[in-house]
Amino acid sequence: VTGLPAFVTFLTDFGWAGGYVAACEATMLRIADDLRILHISHEVLSGDVMSASLILARVAPLGPEAVHLAVVDPGVGTSRRPLAVATARGDVLVGPDNGLLLAAADALGGLASAWTLKVPAVRSKAGLPVGEVSNTFHGRDVFSPAAALLAKGTDMQALGSPLDPETLTRLEAPMPSADATKTGATVVIEVDRFGNVGLGLPFDWLPADAAPSHAYAVEIAGEGAPEWTARVVRTYGDLAPGELGLMRDSWGQAALTLNGASAAEFLGLKMGATVTLAPAKEGADEREAN
Amino acid sequence: VTGLPAFVTFLTDFGWAGGYVAACEATMLRIADDLRILHISHEVLSGDVMSASLILARVAPLGPEAVHLAVVDPGVGTSRRPLAVATARGDVLVGPDNGLLLAAADALGGLASAWTLKVPAVRSKAGLPVGEVSNTFHGRDVFSPAAALLAKGTDMQALGSPLDPETLTRLEAPMPSADATKTGATVVIEVDRFGNVGLGLPFDWLPADAAPSHAYAVEIAGEGAPEWTARVVRTYGDLAPGELGLMRDSWGQAALTLNGASAAEFLGLKMGATVTLAPAKEGADEREAN
Amino acid sequence: VTGLPAFVTFLTDFGWAGGYVAACEATMLRIADDLRILHISHEVLSGDVMSASLILARVAPLGPEAVHLAVVDPGVGTSRRPLAVATARGDVLVGPDNGLLLAAADALGGLASAWTLKVPAVRSKAGLPVGEVSNTFHGRDVFSPAAALLAKGTDMQALGSPLDPETLTRLEAPMPSADATKTGATVVIEVDRFGNVGLGLPFDWLPADAAPSHAYAVEIAGEGAPEWTARVVRTYGDLAPGELGLMRDSWGQAALTLNGASAAEFLGLKMGATVTLAPAKEGADEREAN
Repeated sequence: VTGLPAFVTFLTDFGWAGGYVAACEATMLRIADDLRILHISHEVLSGDVMSASLILARVAPLGPEAVHLAVVDPGVGTSRRPLAVATARGDVLVGPDNGLLLAAADALGGLASAWTLKVPAVRSKAGLPVGEVSNTFHGRDVFSPAAALLAKGTDMQALGSPLDPETLTRLEAPMPSADATKTGATVVIEVDRFGNVGLGLPFDWLPADAAPSHAYAVEIAGEGAPEWTARVVRTYGDLAPGELGLMRDSWGQAALTLNGASAAEFLGLKMGATVTLAPAKEGADEREAN
Repeated sequence: VTGLPAFVTFLTDFGWAGGYVAACEATMLRIADDLRILHISHEVLSGDVMSASLILARVAPLGPEAVHLAVVDPGVGTSRRPLAVATARGDVLVGPDNGLLLAAADALGGLASAWTLKVPAVRSKAGLPVGEVSNTFHGRDVFSPAAALLAKGTDMQALGSPLDPETLTRLEAPMPSADATKTGATVVIEVDRFGNVGLGLPFDWLPADAAPSHAYAVEIAGEGAPEWTARVVRTYGDLAPGELGLMRDSWGQAALTLNGASAAEFLGLKMGATVTLAPAKEGADEREAN
Repeated sequence: VTGLPAFVTFLTDFGWAGGYVAACEATMLRIADDLRILHISHEVLSGDVMSASLILARVAPLGPEAVHLAVVDPGVGTSRRPLAVATARGDVLVGPDNGLLLAAADALGGLASAWTLKVPAVRSKAGLPVGEVSNTFHGRDVFSPAAALLAKGTDMQALGSPLDPETLTRLEAPMPSADATKTGATVVIEVDRFGNVGLGLPFDWLPADAAPSHAYAVEIAGEGAPEWTARVVRTYGDLAPGELGLMRDSWGQAALTLNGASAAEFLGLKMGATVTLAPAKEGADEREAN
């Protein structure tokens, strides 16, 4: 792992307000002052490893080869392992062993090797006091120094011990399983700022017999939840104001959308909610949201 | 348009949370890894083209020559044109044809030429699959590649077709019209984080006969809205706590302010609300907010 | 003050939304286009000089030598002085004379010299119109130009006049006073995004006789406020869900925490609230939060 470009992408749930993001960035720049840091997001919901995993897997492949530092780490200070994961594309992922990094590793060509960071080695190579490691802020004390060292070309062998990838903690996949194709049941994997509802179902996997109405019945899990009809459209502007639409989102997933309003709010949908899509019956009303 | 410095400013309504800003930044850095990206704001209200236009026109002239990438684009995926606009100062503006770019073009010395981006040419020059353009995220798929290519010196002719500037979509001006000088009626063009209310009226255009009280009556449109008196002051610190003031804001506009509290909240004013200012009658009470 | 590395850290209460942060950054980059800008935070609560002072003192020493630009400035436009403060480590702090800079100066090895910025000199050296200084946005008009000039190596003598450090405005210390060791009374100096409550009391100063229960009684000032018991733990993961803990936070301070929920919300604690800690009596119930 030498000759890496000195890019570090950085993703956390720290929020910008309190200076915690900057504490990590400052630590990295003190170790390698020519690093270029690309902030992916620091506004992931506290402890939402699954959303962070999805965002990282989406963004990392778009950019240049980099060290990807990701810290959403509810288990900080416990025995969960600090990781560095090399990928086939040549990137390195740094973060906790809680499943956060693995979807991105897949998206970067697959995992090439995995390492447990040796904290004293990282601290020592970074010129930091070996014993001064907090129990609650490994972003600053362990992961940022490791990311900076790897980005400046320090050999992985000097910082970690190889581990068996089979032992890595994995998330339940936030992305679709094949079951979705059979039953049409899927989960909400994203609610974006505009209120669009991303589903764990690639648009191309939708049951194809929605013609001639080109609409799907949308059933939301939960007692008494109403059923809606969503028309298949290409983009927001194809919808009448207040009309519910179903489209291929910018990541290829099926997504529910309202023109000019929040579909998530209208439908009462949050991350992880279950939604079932089925071709709408002919003649079904296309109810409008407003 | 050659020899541009490799600065890209970046303004959207995407919010930082979901990784959409970073998806664009990563895309640009993959095309030109020495770009320097200056984030103007990504917290513009969803679809608020007018506010974004004002912010861009204010910030762009303060910095070095740059490519200014701005994406507030409710019409993404429809027939609205993707634009690049060259300015007299030497900057290039990139974004949708919905009026977003034109106030900044004026502030950068005026429009020199305007171009419709040819999406296949942009994709191809950027080394991206020509056909893989989403319907909903042209920020990543069209505008970021175009901005990166222009910032690294790609010739505009290779990326777009010249268009007649007369055909560009224009916003109703968010900045003052001359009418304001006659009637004193103006609109709220900004509510800042401190609750200061920026008005679409240059401070120097205020009717000048406010002496000797140096105060203005503030009438807010809407049935039953009370009338307030605002004293002309230089800065926040010249006001008593809870006193309403009128001052020249940092952009030269007239602005309403409360010392230590939100004038917008106190007066119930939002973007676009109508406010009428007139010299206060002598002896008028200067009501205090608290 | 020559040969400074061209890093500028930047801390304000402007928020990102309105373009005010970018207006400053653009101004700096126009003066020195090779500056590297590290954003510490722009989401400090409006006018919260004390929190900003603490954040700056925590982050600045972690990074490389830099010019640290900090603008939380409720007194902008009044007679409060614009400052530049050189530190023993070789950093320079730039901002208003309201106490904001001094904790960071201490953390950077102590104050070496202090200067009042001469606004016309700053403007002139920066190539900006000398007279065009707003009354409300010295971040853009005075402090950013000064920071950029200092970062590119302009001599301090050319930009300011030396002043007597004894005349600098000081904050009441946000950090602990020795009184805390005697009475156990302390104040809330931080509420982080996870709801952890940082106290103005170094963890090592806690009265040491909490054994054998290893728990502290937590008394919150205010009529009728209940008393809680907090168990001393190393990290979040050592707590049962809903259990209240007391731990050494990542800055060495005593902090109250709940596993998986906001301790601040649960305890009703805000910045500046008074909390008294005393060793829990043996046999005291360890009440749980949920």
